[in-house]
Amino acid sequence: MLKYEQIAQQMNEYIENRHFQAGDKLPSVETLKEKYNVSKSTIIKALEKLEKHGTIYQARGSGIYVRNKQRDGYLNLFSTGGFRDEMVGLEVTNKVISLNEIKPPKSVQQKLKLDNNDCVYLLKRIIYVDEKILCYEESYFNKNIVLFLNESIAEQSIFKYLEQHLKVKIGFSDIYFTVDKLNAEDANLLELSEGDPSLQYEQVFYTTTGIPFDCSHLIYHYQNSHFYIPSQK
Amino acid sequence: MLKYEQIAQQMNEYIENRHFQAGDKLPSVETLKEKYNVSKSTIIKALEKLEKHGTIYQARGSGIYVRNKQRDGYLNLFSTGGFRDEMVGLEVTNKVISLNEIKPPKSVQQKLKLDNNDCVYLLKRIIYVDEKILCYEESYFNKNIVLFLNESIAEQSIFKYLEQHLKVKIGFSDIYFTVDKLNAEDANLLELSEGDPSLQYEQVFYTTTGIPFDCSHLIYHYQNSHFYIPSQK
Repeated sequence: MLKYEQIAQQMNEYIENRHFQAGDKLPSVETLKEKYNVSKSTIIKALEKLEKHGTIYQARGSGIYVRNKQRDGYLNLFSTGGFRDEMVGLEVTNKVISLNEIKPPKSVQQKLKLDNNDCVYLLKRIIYVDEKILCYEESYFNKNIVLFLNESIAEQSIFKYLEQHLKVKIGFSDIYFTVDKLNAEDANLLELSEGDPSLQYEQVFYTTTGIPFDCSHLIYHYQNSHFYIPSQK
Repeated sequence: MLKYEQIAQQMNEYIENRHFQAGDKLPSVETLKEKYNVSKSTIIKALEKLEKHGTIYQARGSGIYVRNKQRDGYLNLFSTGGFRDEMVGLEVTNKVISLNEIKPPKSVQQKLKLDNNDCVYLLKRIIYVDEKILCYEESYFNKNIVLFLNESIAEQSIFKYLEQHLKVKIGFSDIYFTVDKLNAEDANLLELSEGDPSLQYEQVFYTTTGIPFDCSHLIYHYQNSHFYIPSQK
């Protein structure tokens, strides 16, 4: 974790512990700089991170304020972090259905910018939050970046593994989604009925240098999923 | 429009017109500064805006690159702009169903931080994209900020009116959504069937100084709506 990320985390805890409310004013950049004993630029980057996550807002010429607290159990879609990062306080688990090395379909090959002969890991999982089904996930991992994967890794946080062990720098992601009726197969996986509503979700993850390494298709359980986006002008 | 917003728009057009592809490198900050004849800080702010919108990404120590082009017809949920801003190239129209001054329900009163006696404008509209129903919208406007509203204004872009005429500075918004089955009444408004899937969407808009001025509930037509989020770490 980089210095500014640590500071952002500490500030977040400070806001939580002091029971700040939406609209409450935070100390100035100068005061924060002294409080945390870091450079001004580190404070500014930490504040930017908190702003992106919807924790604070900065009113030009006026100061730094606490934004609305995120509702518990809502998945924050603005930040590319992985489920565990975004579901603070809830227990995230998963069940691996299968993990295989395959030649990806053409559409995935294009999205991951792979050559014709490149293989990918295809991982199928069910994700649970507090033991309820959150979604069914099919992820295609670019083997040039995700050098190795097995079932026991896939049962944990893959992103933590990528960052800590494979030194992958996760940069950004593109999310596309629509709403549709469940087909029989997907309904079965989610323990719902055919024709029930669902959020059909595609996400492509990139490294900080813009290399796509994960193309995921998710189908969310409509009764167990809630989403939040801190949007900005 | 602020200077950096103009520059961001010009850069966006430049990327479009030159047919840049995802991964293509853009000129350096120094070169852009000379090209557009503005200060370095204006270029940096313009680039930040483009980064937020998912147009570019900046790889530390390496340069500025073009990100994937947004898919046509997808609504960009990261930017708090209003439909017209986000549906470039498509025709956005709407039909006002009703506009009234009312005492808001308790939940809206809290979200807009209003006193017990404060009234709001309640606007009900159907939004169309290329003549297809996109969503049904119920918006509650804080009359302390949205001083005046009538039907003919509501048929146009309300946000443009707020910015240009009422000098409201739109800052950020909180979006919450879930997926659910349509009830009979909403299905009728969207010309769908009861029990069909839908995206149920709540958005609270704030000024740059953090005053909530619009609390909207939207129900999207599942066949006609597609969403995009440029997400970041």
